[in-house]
Amino acid sequence: MAPRRVGLWLIGACGGVASTTALGLSALARGQTPPTGLVTALPQFAGHDFDAPDAFVVGGHDIRKGNFLTAARELHERSNVFDERTLAACAGDLETWSANLRPGVVYRPDAAITALADRPDTRRAGSAREAIDAIQSDLKAFKAAHRLDQLVVVNAASTEPPFEPTDEQKSLERLLPALERAAPASLPTSGVYAFAALDAGFPYVNMTPSRGATLPALEELARKRGVPHAGQDLKTGETLLKSVLAPMFARRNLRVLSWVGHNILGNRDGLVLNDPDNKSSKVTSKDRLLAELLGYRPQSHVSIEYIESLDDWKTAWDHIHFEGFLGTKMMMQFTWQGCDSLLAAPLVIDLVRLTALAQRRGESGPMPHLACFFKSPIGVSEHDFGKQFALLEAYLANPACKPGRAS
Amino acid sequence: MAPRRVGLWLIGACGGVASTTALGLSALARGQTPPTGLVTALPQFAGHDFDAPDAFVVGGHDIRKGNFLTAARELHERSNVFDERTLAACAGDLETWSANLRPGVVYRPDAAITALADRPDTRRAGSAREAIDAIQSDLKAFKAAHRLDQLVVVNAASTEPPFEPTDEQKSLERLLPALERAAPASLPTSGVYAFAALDAGFPYVNMTPSRGATLPALEELARKRGVPHAGQDLKTGETLLKSVLAPMFARRNLRVLSWVGHNILGNRDGLVLNDPDNKSSKVTSKDRLLAELLGYRPQSHVSIEYIESLDDWKTAWDHIHFEGFLGTKMMMQFTWQGCDSLLAAPLVIDLVRLTALAQRRGESGPMPHLACFFKSPIGVSEHDFGKQFALLEAYLANPACKPGRAS
Amino acid sequence: MAPRRVGLWLIGACGGVASTTALGLSALARGQTPPTGLVTALPQFAGHDFDAPDAFVVGGHDIRKGNFLTAARELHERSNVFDERTLAACAGDLETWSANLRPGVVYRPDAAITALADRPDTRRAGSAREAIDAIQSDLKAFKAAHRLDQLVVVNAASTEPPFEPTDEQKSLERLLPALERAAPASLPTSGVYAFAALDAGFPYVNMTPSRGATLPALEELARKRGVPHAGQDLKTGETLLKSVLAPMFARRNLRVLSWVGHNILGNRDGLVLNDPDNKSSKVTSKDRLLAELLGYRPQSHVSIEYIESLDDWKTAWDHIHFEGFLGTKMMMQFTWQGCDSLLAAPLVIDLVRLTALAQRRGESGPMPHLACFFKSPIGVSEHDFGKQFALLEAYLANPACKPGRAS
Amino acid sequence: MAPRRVGLWLIGACGGVASTTALGLSALARGQTPPTGLVTALPQFAGHDFDAPDAFVVGGHDIRKGNFLTAARELHERSNVFDERTLAACAGDLETWSANLRPGVVYRPDAAITALADRPDTRRAGSAREAIDAIQSDLKAFKAAHRLDQLVVVNAASTEPPFEPTDEQKSLERLLPALERAAPASLPTSGVYAFAALDAGFPYVNMTPSRGATLPALEELARKRGVPHAGQDLKTGETLLKSVLAPMFARRNLRVLSWVGHNILGNRDGLVLNDPDNKSSKVTSKDRLLAELLGYRPQSHVSIEYIESLDDWKTAWDHIHFEGFLGTKMMMQFTWQGCDSLLAAPLVIDLVRLTALAQRRGESGPMPHLACFFKSPIGVSEHDFGKQFALLEAYLANPACKPGRAS
Repeated sequence: MAPRRVGLWLIGACGGVASTTALGLSALARGQTPPTGLVTALPQFAGHDFDAPDAFVVGGHDIRKGNFLTAARELHERSNVFDERTLAACAGDLETWSANLRPGVVYRPDAAITALADRPDTRRAGSAREAIDAIQSDLKAFKAAHRLDQLVVVNAASTEPPFEPTDEQKSLERLLPALERAAPASLPTSGVYAFAALDAGFPYVNMTPSRGATLPALEELARKRGVPHAGQDLKTGETLLKSVLAPMFARRNLRVLSWVGHNILGNRDGLVLNDPDNKSSKVTSKDRLLAELLGYRPQSHVSIEYIESLDDWKTAWDHIHFEGFLGTKMMMQFTWQGCDSLLAAPLVIDLVRLTALAQRRGESGPMPHLACFFKSPIGVSEHDFGKQFALLEAYLANPACKPGRAS
Repeated sequence: MAPRRVGLWLIGACGGVASTTALGLSALARGQTPPTGLVTALPQFAGHDFDAPDAFVVGGHDIRKGNFLTAARELHERSNVFDERTLAACAGDLETWSANLRPGVVYRPDAAITALADRPDTRRAGSAREAIDAIQSDLKAFKAAHRLDQLVVVNAASTEPPFEPTDEQKSLERLLPALERAAPASLPTSGVYAFAALDAGFPYVNMTPSRGATLPALEELARKRGVPHAGQDLKTGETLLKSVLAPMFARRNLRVLSWVGHNILGNRDGLVLNDPDNKSSKVTSKDRLLAELLGYRPQSHVSIEYIESLDDWKTAWDHIHFEGFLGTKMMMQFTWQGCDSLLAAPLVIDLVRLTALAQRRGESGPMPHLACFFKSPIGVSEHDFGKQFALLEAYLANPACKPGRAS
Repeated sequence: MAPRRVGLWLIGACGGVASTTALGLSALARGQTPPTGLVTALPQFAGHDFDAPDAFVVGGHDIRKGNFLTAARELHERSNVFDERTLAACAGDLETWSANLRPGVVYRPDAAITALADRPDTRRAGSAREAIDAIQSDLKAFKAAHRLDQLVVVNAASTEPPFEPTDEQKSLERLLPALERAAPASLPTSGVYAFAALDAGFPYVNMTPSRGATLPALEELARKRGVPHAGQDLKTGETLLKSVLAPMFARRNLRVLSWVGHNILGNRDGLVLNDPDNKSSKVTSKDRLLAELLGYRPQSHVSIEYIESLDDWKTAWDHIHFEGFLGTKMMMQFTWQGCDSLLAAPLVIDLVRLTALAQRRGESGPMPHLACFFKSPIGVSEHDFGKQFALLEAYLANPACKPGRAS
Repeated sequence: MAPRRVGLWLIGACGGVASTTALGLSALARGQTPPTGLVTALPQFAGHDFDAPDAFVVGGHDIRKGNFLTAARELHERSNVFDERTLAACAGDLETWSANLRPGVVYRPDAAITALADRPDTRRAGSAREAIDAIQSDLKAFKAAHRLDQLVVVNAASTEPPFEPTDEQKSLERLLPALERAAPASLPTSGVYAFAALDAGFPYVNMTPSRGATLPALEELARKRGVPHAGQDLKTGETLLKSVLAPMFARRNLRVLSWVGHNILGNRDGLVLNDPDNKSSKVTSKDRLLAELLGYRPQSHVSIEYIESLDDWKTAWDHIHFEGFLGTKMMMQFTWQGCDSLLAAPLVIDLVRLTALAQRRGESGPMPHLACFFKSPIGVSEHDFGKQFALLEAYLANPACKPGRAS
């Protein structure tokens, strides 16, 4: 029997996260790097039927010029990450996979993202339907060309501005006719890609705070087509820390008076987030969980600022003011100096592996056991990282996940 | 039926933690302060048969001059904690309880602690047995005088130097004859107090890194006398953070390369810890858990320095260097500015309540469900704060803990 | 000869800075506190003819209810500063001085400041002239009532929104007729108070980023009336640090790539600054000096956020990203946890002393030797704190400053 | 007239600072890098007769295997500094200069440094005289082989343990006979190298806290031979910050209560400093200046710990506790994340340029105008960085420093 081949389709393929994911898959497959940062490589999860690094074929969409190799090289030079040896060893794979890149499809462009679109063959669709058709055609062609057993679509694009749904997005029945319309937009860009993937039977993973598959009509579509999907907004730094620190304050009955978080970063994601509209999607996603973890709403403030010199090094300063016994006010501060793409990329590989596994097990709809990966997990309200992780452990401890049982 | 009366006997009664505990109990009983910082006051634990603040009568031993009120006032003035209103409202209780103070018994004095002994009636015992007899006589007199239903003994004294046990402390049978001996010491000071309490049937809680009841002969004694005991070394700041942050790094498969923690504080505990001998007990207790939480031993360094101007404000700076995907080194730093006595005192109240409850339920020996309170929990190897807390939740969810069932 | 009596008139008298200044003057006069934080009390400045603390009589304007004593008590309770002893010892003086308080005069109110006006007798003036007359009448009455030798007016009010001057404020000739007009405003509120003071021959010190006496017509007035004035915007925390750290980077030829400063505070000043309009005055003042100190303009970002729980404790986090040799990027971060009113109040006393001295020496117009006190010093472009301080030293080394020479 | 040729002889040539200096000189000469980090490249110092980067020929001693190129490559790989392009462009120069390396001479070895000696041809001298002769022979051969106009010797070796001088080192007359002795050591290793250089007429610069030329007999030798020398202990990070921050606290009359500095680093220098003996030299040098800058001695604590994973990234956390007006305690903290070799190397180039210039001007003995480079400047007690820098400016403003005037 031929080994399984799994396609990974990256929306925003020339971004830092996507190119690092491609480089990382190649480096893992070639034994150039240990699997540090991969949850699916933890010793306690050994023995599961996760796809090996060399099982993957990578492709994607982007509205910007470039390819996996040039994007990885740029990240190397600007942010001082990766080493020359790894880049050299993996350059061939990145070039091969770059042949699978297709121009992005713009349907409801926002100013901040459109400013980045420098790929001349970027396609502009007259309706959501037109965009969906173009995207599905790319996905199917990729699957056929590489005789893929499975294909997982991942949204690794920049954050889009908030999209306010109307009744139209509440059911598939109402949404379908609206897709034919030119304006107003019946779906945000992320929704168009999500629709295209799910409708064609391909699982969809949303690493961003964009709407993606979270609209009710799209959740309905996922269940109808029997496809699993996951999201939303990867939890890699400040919010991850909130999800372990806030439960600590809660369990010790220490009253959080205020929680201030300032984030500075200089990559393209930061540039897009500098647009107040796009930023608001992100800040909401970062801020929400505190009240749920604490049981009350302390004053909180989250900022994200684009500081060019930092490139991919996202630096966060959090100041937590809390009250202890007898009214005593105390403080905790932390700074987190993490490289965004390097924190996110291994989680993309994890999510693709876990999603492909779920699809093989016949699961569909949201996957609550993946909550530990996301700032705003779909289908579950748990925000405590420890408890979220226990959901993953429980899921994988279920014998249906073991290799050999799926067949 | 007369309401239950519970005695709280504090060893090191004139220290910051003990005097804050006394002040706090009075302030809670008089409605002067909300129960912020008390785990037993969390909403999810409502309905348990915990002793109300006004059920407590407080006494204790110390080798230093002073009493609950002078110690609380000194803390107020040096560390700028509590407010005048609270002190005024509670002064009467503190004075009343100060009448229960008895001079400490010194048996195997270490230089750093003895330097603090300025109470002229401090008793010097010629053997462990002599010390034990004197202590038990005080405890029994306290119980009788106040017609107490229960009495919990708490070690809130300064950290003693390490005590290296021999075969003698391995069983009660071997220990008993050695107690009569003048020298070498058959027990550390903390062990003498623990023996006295347990032997007389009083539960013992050890908030310090000193040996206390952890020697095998004393554990045997606790089981034999049917008394519960708990320890060791309250987890209030830097180590608490380690026990929530290290699991996060482990679950994300981020490799901790080094973890450096520098602690500065200026209270009497800090002064005693400035003695290298006494400090070593503390540093060991703070450092141990990393390897257990991570599954490997990163380079680590812990320092504690006495900086007089900080008084009770323990300030910690931790620098965590970790490796993510593709060999990328990243950093997290935190500073914790907490007031030591105010963080510890509510936990003392929690532990006394939980210990008194356990005794009423007929439990004896170490209480693994109290692991979340301690740096070096007795009777359980779990160091993950979230999992430790789940042990407490499970214990309290057990119907035997509900009020009415114990009778 | 009767000892000299100097009046200190505080605009914004019920604010934290003003009430702390009054408390501090009383505490110094009564020997309740050492002169820590006073530049004029430095050993190297001993022997100058600075007014002694007991030479001062304090009064002021405010649009809010309260007085020196209630404001100082509120600060004590909210921010945990001062001790009961000091408050008790000084309460009499504060009450006496509170009798000198007069309701503020509102002329061109902005929304954020007006929201604070809860004093029912706050006067609303129909024109700048009407406001000036009312203010001068208060100042003269104060001087007469207390037989003051000198009177210094200090703007300690909250920051007003930017005022865009037109040609009208460029000369006294053009300004004078406009003062009679009802609208549009011919002067910002701070300008009205500055005009009133200078025109009546009283020196004016502007501790805020508001315009005050910096408009050309007012500088002309100061020179014409022969009165010295000083400003603007006290340098007490983050900006003070910028003015010592930026020269260090410059002298070592380390290239600052970006300088990010986030400020959080919870006092009334913070609340007013939460209004974007008022905030913009402040941020501009904090940001300007970097380019002048470095010789180029790095990317910079300054935020000020109102975080209620912090009260008067202004906490700043600065992240400085810089490039060293061979393109190596490095980082410095600092946090500053300072109590705003306590940092500012001694400088108010310094400035009043130095201004009264200058008036006695017959100086008029801006005082460049006071640059080290201000974020935006008037009459001098030096921003390096060390060099600014040398200007003060040189001024005071001038024999004309020595006691006995002025007479 | 042939262009001037200046030799730079590095003791500890295979260390991070020395190899970065060599790489930097080559990169500057080849136009591969801007002169960021060089004080002598500041615009205000343009026009002085500083030697151009291509005027230098580099050589040196070491007791470890390796050469300039391998050491620079190792630093690149371990600490993620420099880029491949620079290394490639400069590899030829580094190889050429590596031919000038000579095995070190060990005379009074200390344990920590000897542990590093892996060069089999390291020479062990039976007396100081024997060591001096061997070193002088190397220096003279280097000068002759390259027809150098000047030769500056720089101590860039690891820190040696403290050397307690006796009467013997107080004058040249007493020292000379002692040099012939086998034991006890008449000079520390750094003193042997300093003697060799000065005695042969070569200026000596001591970047380390080791004794070097600071012993009275060696200062006498320098004056006698008419050679300038400089030291001691480069000021590159935490201490540099102390020398700008402490004056700020002093000038604002804010009382520093305690100043705690914790340094962690992972390079070879850190390893040597891990030895308590060697560390004590460094800590003393870092700690001394506070009292001189403040005028009183606050409690202070300085630690240096070897944390391997940090490699050349020296990270410092400083906590400054200070008292302001009315007894209010406030805090400042900073972290400095600097790459040690990259901060030091440009200063080495500066010092060699300034020393060569001084020699051409006929100066001899210590150079107080170089105080701004050192933690413990020789010949001057000024520690305020701003005032130290003014000394350098004044020196260079002196016309004797201008090109053309020296002849």
